[in-house]
Parts: sequence; C-alpha cells; structure tokens
Amino acid sequence: MKIILIGASGTIGRKIAATVEKDHELVRVGSKSGDFRVDIGSTESIEKFFTEVGPFDTLISAAGDGHFGPLHSMTAKDFRKGLESKLLGQVNLVLIGQHYVRPKGSFTLTAGSLSEDPIALGANLSAVNAALEAFGRSAALELENGVRINVVSPTVVEDSPGYFPYFPGHIPVTMDRVAAAYAKSAFGAQTGQVYKVV
Amino acid sequence: MKIILIGASGTIGRKIAATVEKDHELVRVGSKSGDFRVDIGSTESIEKFFTEVGPFDTLISAAGDGHFGPLHSMTAKDFRKGLESKLLGQVNLVLIGQHYVRPKGSFTLTAGSLSEDPIALGANLSAVNAALEAFGRSAALELENGVRINVVSPTVVEDSPGYFPYFPGHIPVTMDRVAAAYAKSAFGAQTGQVYKVV
Repeated sequence: MKIILIGASGTIGRKIAATVEKDHELVRVGSKSGDFRVDIGSTESIEKFFTEVGPFDTLISAAGDGHFGPLHSMTAKDFRKGLESKLLGQVNLVLIGQHYVRPKGSFTLTAGSLSEDPIALGANLSAVNAALEAFGRSAALELENGVRINVVSPTVVEDSPGYFPYFPGHIPVTMDRVAAAYAKSAFGAQTGQVYKVV
Repeated sequence: MKIILIGASGTIGRKIAATVEKDHELVRVGSKSGDFRVDIGSTESIEKFFTEVGPFDTLISAAGDGHFGPLHSMTAKDFRKGLESKLLGQVNLVLIGQHYVRPKGSFTLTAGSLSEDPIALGANLSAVNAALEAFGRSAALELENGVRINVVSPTVVEDSPGYFPYFPGHIPVTMDRVAAAYAKSAFGAQTGQVYKVV
C-alpha cells in the first residue's frame, strides 16, 4: 500500500512512520524535509505535490499549526492562523487529493481533544479541531469510489511534555495508542469516524 | 437590557427581534439594513460599529454565510467562504466585542446541526458550525467580568422551506423553539453551552 504521510518529521508523524514503514511504501512529506516537500497553506504547492507523487492508497496528515494564546488579546489575524494552516491546510489535502487517490483509498486527518475538552488559551485550536472532526463526518458522505476518511483526535501526547502545564489533569496518552488510531483509520474499513485518543 | 442583534432582518433574526423587542432596548444590525450596518467580514467595520453603538449587555448574532455544494468540485475558495463569513465573522464579534460588552453581559452565536448531523453538500457548513460550537465552549473559560457565551445550533427551521429538500427526514423546528434557545442564552445564567434545537 502506498502511504503518503504529511508531517512525517513531527512528534506524531515520526511514530506513525515507524509503525507503518515496514509493511508499506511510505512517502515522507514535510514542509522542510522528507521525500517530498509541501506547503499545506498553498493550494498551488498541494496541487504540484499530488501531480509529482502520483496515485496513492492512503494519505495520513499530522500537520498544521494553530494559535495558542489568551482570548483577551486574541485578534482576527491570530485566529486565522489555525484556520489557514491546521484546518484549511488539511481540508485542502482532501479537496485536492480526492482527485488523485486510488479507489478504496483513504484520508486520515489530525484534530485534537480541545474540540470537546477546552483549556485556557485554546480557543483557536478548539474551533479548528472541531471543524476538522465535522469535516471528516461530512466529507465521508460524498467521497466517491469507496474512498474513506477519518479523523484522529488525541489529547496531549506523552512525547510532548512541553505542553503538559497547559493541560492540567489531562492524562497524556502513549504514542503507541496514538499510532494505533491512525492504523485503525488507514487499514480498517470505517469511514466518517472520529477516533478520540484520550 | 441593551441587546444588539446582528442579522436582524434574516429569517431567524426577525423572530428573535419579535421575541425580545417589547421588554428590551433592541439595536437591529444588518449588512444592508437596520439601526446600524456592519460587515462582519471586516474587522474595521466591526470595530467602527462597536465604537458607535456604545456599551451593551447582550449581543446575539444570527448572521454569516457558508458554502453549500458538492465535495467533488469544492475548492479552497469555496471552503474559505464559510470560514471568513459565518465562522470568523461571528468569532470577531466576540474577539472585538469583549472589549465593549458590559460586565455580566453575554454573547450568543449561531451554528447549526450539521456540526454533528451532516448532509450531502454540507461539508463547509458542518466544519463551520462545529468550529463555532467549540469556540463557544472554549471562550467561556476566558471571558472576563462575568461575561457569558453560548451557541444556538438549530436544524432546518420551519420558515425556510427552500432548504427542506436538502434535509431529508430532518424534522423542521418551529421558530418559537428556535427563539426560545436565544432567550435561554441571553437571559439565563449558563455559559459555554451549545443549545441544540432539533
């Protein structure tokens, strides 16, 4: 199976890569490193990438940024950061990628538990993560040729201790459990699901 | 109580106005009509509006558009329509309005049931509505001086029969029930809630 992994050098991306590389053809993609480079904030960059990488079976995205900061000083520009990168960036991987994916292929996007379990400073990422979850549920109704889509939505992960102070009382999840959710999406049969890893 | 109603001339806005105007000072606001005009797609327009309208107790927004159309031909530009108008437009009413609202005031935004109950052609609005619901949950944690925020999330309403064919089997809700949700948010004590009207 040819798997495209967007965000391959990130904390979650590296674990996904280690999980799937033995049994599959893995294409590592990043903004600054990897077998291919793509700027998910640019539709031109995404189009060019899909043209070059050719048909694929599975796309897994663990990429995209959001704004993290106090509501009191949050601006439209701050809020747009998450909309353009983590949200629209990943949505565009599907909107454009649907024309390149093989029949019965799949997309797996990354949201996060702030969608339903908010924390201080997280208003932008709460909105972005919830939007991604809902996009997955809705896009699953319309993807053609048996193509599936699911969304993985983890809480803070054990390999990101720098975030722990912002998630009081949230129990960090193991990287193994996070990677399992991506495998469930990519190699299972379900579609339109949100896999919460909490 | 001084109530600002954004989208006062819309299907839902008119019903909200009829419900609250007898007992409160109602400021009707629209993009093309009303006591004041505001383009919620423009932060400059929103800033100017709040400066002119002065301090208020309650802001209710029933405004903003999204893209409605097939996933197969959906583009980034299509998807951005809902992000800029219904999502960021309403978010900006809060980000900017938090500096003008009176203590113990409130914000009520409008999402929609596609957040959790998707239909064909609705991927953009599903994402936008879910983002609004999550933004409300998260912003409630940080709004200061006792200011509250809730989100009303109705299914298709009885006064919009043109939408019925796109919502097969969804039972349209009465305008009275929809208006009651806005009253519950504006005049109740809860915050961070999503009032589903289905």
